[in-house]
Amino acid sequence: MKETKVGIIGATGYVGVELIRILSMHPYVRLTHLVSQSFVGKLFSDVYPSFRGVCDLPLSGAKPEEVAADCDFVITALPHGVSSKVVPVLLGCGVKVIDHSGDFRYRTLAPYEESYGLTHPCPELLAEAVYGLPELYRDKLSTARLAANPGCYPTCSILGLAPLLFRKVISSRGIIVDAVSGYSGAGRKADLAYSFCESAESFKAYGVSFHRHTTEIEQEYSYLAGENVRISFTPHLAPMKRGMFATIYADLLPESLGLSAEELQGMYASYYSSDPFVRILPVNGLPETRNVTYSNFIDISVFKDSRTGKVKVLSAQDNLGKGAAAQAVQTLNAMQGYPEGAGLSNLCGCI
Amino acid sequence: MKETKVGIIGATGYVGVELIRILSMHPYVRLTHLVSQSFVGKLFSDVYPSFRGVCDLPLSGAKPEEVAADCDFVITALPHGVSSKVVPVLLGCGVKVIDHSGDFRYRTLAPYEESYGLTHPCPELLAEAVYGLPELYRDKLSTARLAANPGCYPTCSILGLAPLLFRKVISSRGIIVDAVSGYSGAGRKADLAYSFCESAESFKAYGVSFHRHTTEIEQEYSYLAGENVRISFTPHLAPMKRGMFATIYADLLPESLGLSAEELQGMYASYYSSDPFVRILPVNGLPETRNVTYSNFIDISVFKDSRTGKVKVLSAQDNLGKGAAAQAVQTLNAMQGYPEGAGLSNLCGCI
Amino acid sequence: MKETKVGIIGATGYVGVELIRILSMHPYVRLTHLVSQSFVGKLFSDVYPSFRGVCDLPLSGAKPEEVAADCDFVITALPHGVSSKVVPVLLGCGVKVIDHSGDFRYRTLAPYEESYGLTHPCPELLAEAVYGLPELYRDKLSTARLAANPGCYPTCSILGLAPLLFRKVISSRGIIVDAVSGYSGAGRKADLAYSFCESAESFKAYGVSFHRHTTEIEQEYSYLAGENVRISFTPHLAPMKRGMFATIYADLLPESLGLSAEELQGMYASYYSSDPFVRILPVNGLPETRNVTYSNFIDISVFKDSRTGKVKVLSAQDNLGKGAAAQAVQTLNAMQGYPEGAGLSNLCGCI
Amino acid sequence: MKETKVGIIGATGYVGVELIRILSMHPYVRLTHLVSQSFVGKLFSDVYPSFRGVCDLPLSGAKPEEVAADCDFVITALPHGVSSKVVPVLLGCGVKVIDHSGDFRYRTLAPYEESYGLTHPCPELLAEAVYGLPELYRDKLSTARLAANPGCYPTCSILGLAPLLFRKVISSRGIIVDAVSGYSGAGRKADLAYSFCESAESFKAYGVSFHRHTTEIEQEYSYLAGENVRISFTPHLAPMKRGMFATIYADLLPESLGLSAEELQGMYASYYSSDPFVRILPVNGLPETRNVTYSNFIDISVFKDSRTGKVKVLSAQDNLGKGAAAQAVQTLNAMQGYPEGAGLSNLCGCI
Repeated sequence: MKETKVGIIGATGYVGVELIRILSMHPYVRLTHLVSQSFVGKLFSDVYPSFRGVCDLPLSGAKPEEVAADCDFVITALPHGVSSKVVPVLLGCGVKVIDHSGDFRYRTLAPYEESYGLTHPCPELLAEAVYGLPELYRDKLSTARLAANPGCYPTCSILGLAPLLFRKVISSRGIIVDAVSGYSGAGRKADLAYSFCESAESFKAYGVSFHRHTTEIEQEYSYLAGENVRISFTPHLAPMKRGMFATIYADLLPESLGLSAEELQGMYASYYSSDPFVRILPVNGLPETRNVTYSNFIDISVFKDSRTGKVKVLSAQDNLGKGAAAQAVQTLNAMQGYPEGAGLSNLCGCI
Repeated sequence: MKETKVGIIGATGYVGVELIRILSMHPYVRLTHLVSQSFVGKLFSDVYPSFRGVCDLPLSGAKPEEVAADCDFVITALPHGVSSKVVPVLLGCGVKVIDHSGDFRYRTLAPYEESYGLTHPCPELLAEAVYGLPELYRDKLSTARLAANPGCYPTCSILGLAPLLFRKVISSRGIIVDAVSGYSGAGRKADLAYSFCESAESFKAYGVSFHRHTTEIEQEYSYLAGENVRISFTPHLAPMKRGMFATIYADLLPESLGLSAEELQGMYASYYSSDPFVRILPVNGLPETRNVTYSNFIDISVFKDSRTGKVKVLSAQDNLGKGAAAQAVQTLNAMQGYPEGAGLSNLCGCI
Repeated sequence: MKETKVGIIGATGYVGVELIRILSMHPYVRLTHLVSQSFVGKLFSDVYPSFRGVCDLPLSGAKPEEVAADCDFVITALPHGVSSKVVPVLLGCGVKVIDHSGDFRYRTLAPYEESYGLTHPCPELLAEAVYGLPELYRDKLSTARLAANPGCYPTCSILGLAPLLFRKVISSRGIIVDAVSGYSGAGRKADLAYSFCESAESFKAYGVSFHRHTTEIEQEYSYLAGENVRISFTPHLAPMKRGMFATIYADLLPESLGLSAEELQGMYASYYSSDPFVRILPVNGLPETRNVTYSNFIDISVFKDSRTGKVKVLSAQDNLGKGAAAQAVQTLNAMQGYPEGAGLSNLCGCI
Repeated sequence: MKETKVGIIGATGYVGVELIRILSMHPYVRLTHLVSQSFVGKLFSDVYPSFRGVCDLPLSGAKPEEVAADCDFVITALPHGVSSKVVPVLLGCGVKVIDHSGDFRYRTLAPYEESYGLTHPCPELLAEAVYGLPELYRDKLSTARLAANPGCYPTCSILGLAPLLFRKVISSRGIIVDAVSGYSGAGRKADLAYSFCESAESFKAYGVSFHRHTTEIEQEYSYLAGENVRISFTPHLAPMKRGMFATIYADLLPESLGLSAEELQGMYASYYSSDPFVRILPVNGLPETRNVTYSNFIDISVFKDSRTGKVKVLSAQDNLGKGAAAQAVQTLNAMQGYPEGAGLSNLCGCI
């Protein structure tokens, strides 16, 4: 396989460090340039001492075009509104890009502008960007030069419900996504609300009135269902560093009320039969986030609630793994023609 | 105030220890007899060394009638199926009883037998027992000799939705209760699944197909709504010792879609205006379990999801506090004619 | 008992909130004035929502003399260097004071100035201030108008070794104090190093070259030993909110090598026979911080290491309890002539 | 490189699972046989669902000779007293062995029998077994057929003090090792003392009177010092899953009191200049266990305490990594002639 020289812009956030951890073990990738505006001049291992001897690259404050000069491929882990300025420059330099912000995840401008409150500087790229969910868009990714890595909540929400929406066994109305994240989802920052003493031994919701991932989930649900879908979405924070769990509720359509739990499970197994990182649990299996931490796996199970005619779907992933950095590596593999599991297939949680 | 001599049967479980912690500070209660079949002959403070110098009472294996001889009031924290054998004996001895099991929480036999898979040995007591939720049954409790302390999930589910069911602004169909508990809810036991290494840094669901509290919640929702209510309920475990959080979803009825967030919040404030332990948060307020830990408070907020016509209600309590032992003390106060906040009003979480 | 009107300056730090939690339950204290320069105009329960309905006092930015006008007694929880400016004003207004900083803990100027790098503005108060450790200075406290609440590490270090130093069974040379604190010891602040993701699942040392509490411990060890004592002290942080644990190593003097473990334990039991908050464990007993959390207790056990001729002493306390706020309340009781356990004797940890 | 077929006996304990995690990524190892008497007939991924798709090997109850038939190399993670019966059989079948118990760690019989209270069935193997600490015994390991993997506490204690003992700058008397472990060190078992509710938010010591690792540390300290060394050792448990931290205190010899911190640090850097997994921190650097979790690294720093003439050494490792499984893989590499970092050099902690 041809080696890919990869640069990371935004290397010292939690997505950045997880990218570097995974790519340091990737057989076909060489990290060539790390950008962190906050730590210019330091080594990556000064900021993350766990990486001493593993990744001692310097952190630069280079401009996008300078980064592109060192790389075949750049992964941007930047805030929304910043990515949309940097990514066009990178593409213009001829490198491929995976972006982690919300800036290129929408097919149309309206939900982006509604959700992020920004005017998009390069809306023409929305049509070109491929949503970086290999399970749905593997083919498009193989020829893409720009992928928009999905949000963490969207990843577990979309993969959690795709088979049922696609097979049209559930109503497109009344879907509820109740989800929980570890604190790394909030990013690397000094904030009293995320301090140990104010977080440990507590559970809370946030973004209850509106969270940006709502419209991103709805976009993909609508695409899968072939009709407009609106959902109720509530994110929560649990006292753990990593991990994400979604409990999804939907109404079985009248004609599907006779489906057994086994048949529902079979739909999932069949839908994801070619997706090694989606693990469909046996009937009555219960995902736990610890089983997916540090990996690219997402564990899913589906339950039939016969008393109410609903299905409940449980999906567990690592918010920084399948929910962010590991998924980006899977997408990079797809874009570069590598085996999709390169550098990922042996990663797994432990205790 | 007249002192009440209180005995506790099942003193060394997590509900027992929290009862003893609270009652040790109660101005009108004297603990007179502690029963723990597992630790007969030890002192309570041998089992819980934090209590050395605070509660050094011996643990007995006494029969119910022997316990009753020392007490005016007995609180039973026993497994279901055991309580139903012990409680009638205690009542027969003339003491008042608060029971923590599911054995006396149902008005009718069918849902009990369906949920617990047991034949009830004294179904006649179901009619007499008062559901120990002072916010709903304060008056009945004042003359009761037997109260059934509600389950932890039912407490936060019922209090979380009572105003909307009572005021008939939501549909009685499609209600979803998605709830999270700390590990103390699983009780005090040696079990690998609850060990630190298998619990910390993980999140999971359990009882997804069916959890006994479902029918208990439905009983009270139905009572409040004046019609038969069925719900979807999913309990989860978060890596924390104490705390419980419910996120409840319901559909506004068509005629109520015009209600503003302020009006909804006002309904709650008004409904609970005489209930000092129910704290209705301001509009957009966000409960956190740490704010109610070690206390009898439940914090509730209500949100309108205009995009979908639903309401979301958040409620946070301590699963051992308002969800178990503190609530039992509040009920004891009601049954004994004490101020409802006696021994409870200054308890609060800290960091 | 005569009620004491208490004001707190520095009410919203972690020591402040724990003071307010305990004093809200104190039978002879009324909180009359809370100062927090960071939150002037808010209610205390706005900053700590767990206190809604328990303590809804406003937070003021009042000058010391204004606070004194409302109080008989003021507790200052201020940074060192600030306390030394505020406390003289308070004393000048005729109120008694307990201060939590290092400013009044030293008998002599040199170690203070060496440890804190400050010139003391009112060194004459050093002679008057009583070190607020009731187990050692109960009598002096009963007539004091100024008490300096000990540091958290000094409290568990001093109480942990006092009997052996006093009885002169150990060498005054080579003493080692190896101690561990929960994160609340670092105070309430937004700091990446104390964020959940950078703290959970990790253990570390800090202040290894020098920590200010070293000289404070040495002062009291020297006082107890009747000779100059120097120690090696290393503080650590464990991933928990509250709790402090000290492991102390000392060499038995040659003439004491024959002492049995039982005799050593007996020395402790006897030394602390009138101190209800010092719990000497049975021989081979093992303290755990969870047994003292939220309380004023300190649990101590002493071990003889016959293989090396050393003793090991273990002491566990709550860094915010006996290590700070609860101890201050015990000292307040001593200064006001209340029973020493008023408001404290029933506080204990739970699960 | 020639592939090694590796079997693991005791595959489902915490050391076993970490071995399998690491060996699944090892370039020259193929796992061929996993034994777990407790889960015969299940798949490894049934017991650890995180491994579904990564390691789905069956768990057998095979006898040692049957395991040997499938393997070139067997790693035993068995209790002491069991290993000493199994290992001779394996060696007799011609496979190389790394054992994790205490059975082969001692050069002489006396301290083993004193520490473990067992009669050794094959004392002749003590002379042959090599202590599996590559930093000290790399050469011997290259020709060994049996390695005794060191205990977790011994690893961080020995590597933490080796340079100073070897260079004879510290006294061999009065050395103190104060160490802390995460709960995985206690092994995988259902035990109330290790349950989440009884462990989280607490810190404690154990094995204070005597812990078996004491004599193991003393053996290697004595070897390094060239004289008999006795230490005081105290292990503790902190509320985290993984991680181990040692704080070591020793007296500088009179002739070494003039050594600067830089010179001490230089001794360490020089002593470990060929050891890629020992990371000597810069002067005043502070190790944290999170920096070594999931890796084979040990981070060490040395401090001079001029006030008392002591040195303090801090060392941090993962108790299951360098303290157990990762170290075993490093030793396997040494025994098989692989590059010492094969399968290990890119493993590192993250958040």
